[in-house]
Amino acid sequence: MPAVSLHGLEGLPLVQPGDDLPALLCDALDRAGLRLTDGDVLVVAQKIVSKAEGRRRPLAEVVPSPRALELAEVVRKDPRLVEVVLSESRDVIRAVPNVLIVEHRLGFVMANAGVDQSNVEGDEAAALLLPEDPDASCRRLRAALERRYGARLAVVMNDSFGRPWRNGVTGVCIGASGLPALLDRRGAPDLFGRALRITEIAVGDEVAAAASMVMGQAGEGIPAVLVRGLRIEGPDRPASALIRSRQHDLFR
Amino acid sequence: MPAVSLHGLEGLPLVQPGDDLPALLCDALDRAGLRLTDGDVLVVAQKIVSKAEGRRRPLAEVVPSPRALELAEVVRKDPRLVEVVLSESRDVIRAVPNVLIVEHRLGFVMANAGVDQSNVEGDEAAALLLPEDPDASCRRLRAALERRYGARLAVVMNDSFGRPWRNGVTGVCIGASGLPALLDRRGAPDLFGRALRITEIAVGDEVAAAASMVMGQAGEGIPAVLVRGLRIEGPDRPASALIRSRQHDLFR
Repeated sequence: MPAVSLHGLEGLPLVQPGDDLPALLCDALDRAGLRLTDGDVLVVAQKIVSKAEGRRRPLAEVVPSPRALELAEVVRKDPRLVEVVLSESRDVIRAVPNVLIVEHRLGFVMANAGVDQSNVEGDEAAALLLPEDPDASCRRLRAALERRYGARLAVVMNDSFGRPWRNGVTGVCIGASGLPALLDRRGAPDLFGRALRITEIAVGDEVAAAASMVMGQAGEGIPAVLVRGLRIEGPDRPASALIRSRQHDLFR
Repeated sequence: MPAVSLHGLEGLPLVQPGDDLPALLCDALDRAGLRLTDGDVLVVAQKIVSKAEGRRRPLAEVVPSPRALELAEVVRKDPRLVEVVLSESRDVIRAVPNVLIVEHRLGFVMANAGVDQSNVEGDEAAALLLPEDPDASCRRLRAALERRYGARLAVVMNDSFGRPWRNGVTGVCIGASGLPALLDRRGAPDLFGRALRITEIAVGDEVAAAASMVMGQAGEGIPAVLVRGLRIEGPDRPASALIRSRQHDLFR
């Protein structure tokens, strides 16, 4: 079968609030001699989307609530950062020294609500929040790229999450448009005609992890990866389909 | 930067106990016109390694213990299968209807101790267990392939795990040799010279997920994937490094 290829896009400028992200990505693709075509999947790092969407919050402007002050003591983090995390969360799942795991307002269970202090430019301390609605960001980015290239594309937004039971972080899908982020294979037969044990595949997370594997190769300098040659059959489903509902979750 | 490519290997025969797996893989690589070279990573599905290592247990030979009978009632599974799962486990983490999550004797927290009933050939019901020591299986496979090709290679074994909080399964690394399955980046500076927030990357799991993404494209017919062009700098670490120790785990 034909190979699937992963092309890391280097040389994007540092993204600023209000930047035209599709244009920056097209420039980087042009420089790499890549022209998007039917079936291509572009994976973008959450960080650059958040920056373009102006999701940066200078910590000097944040006044921590009593609850944030209390929690900051437990987790040993800056109370202003904890305040920002709480403002992005609907529940605290675990809070111990150096670890603050929450349910993000969008449903993701993740450390620090995805709020990041590293790689934000400028001298003053600031927090970078997840995009307001990452699936919507992917839909918009996909529409702009499809107009530009006249091709049927998919866009995935990835971030790095830790996991229970396993060390290290992996890329996960927090936004998607144009592919089944969750693929339902219920009823598909296995090689021997029996129903498959595994019924749903987190395709979005696998694509996100594959892109992270490439992004991680060159430090932090590859904020987007083109995945070419994937043939995923299935209805378009956003990253929100990857979130397990509370009543089906055995671990909170 | 040069692309990373993922080549799915099709056309492997159904693997039987005692088969020479390196030879079968070399044949498939030859047919695909691929010759392994320095830096190549071969990802093999757990299933074919387990089959070659004779890890199949006909259920007719299994006598369930009282504990397996009791647990089978709770999880609504075949008591003989539950007996096999328990024999491969050192703890039961969650048991509810249709779900049995255990700590595998090797430390993996996973459903059914990785014991699989699908895709095992033959008419009689049988269970397929994980390899005795997947890291050792990868070391042996890597040694055989390195001899054959005269190149410095890595081998990863993948399986599909569910996760708390997220729907669907993804590929994870349960065996590795020749690469850092867990990559320590503590102290590495980010783009702005600050210490990175993320300190350990589960490279093995990202490679495993990337391979699963390709394996999933053609139903169940791609049991191995060649990953070419990755440049991962770091010391060789096996999949066992990915297992979080009990005392550092907040979720059991």
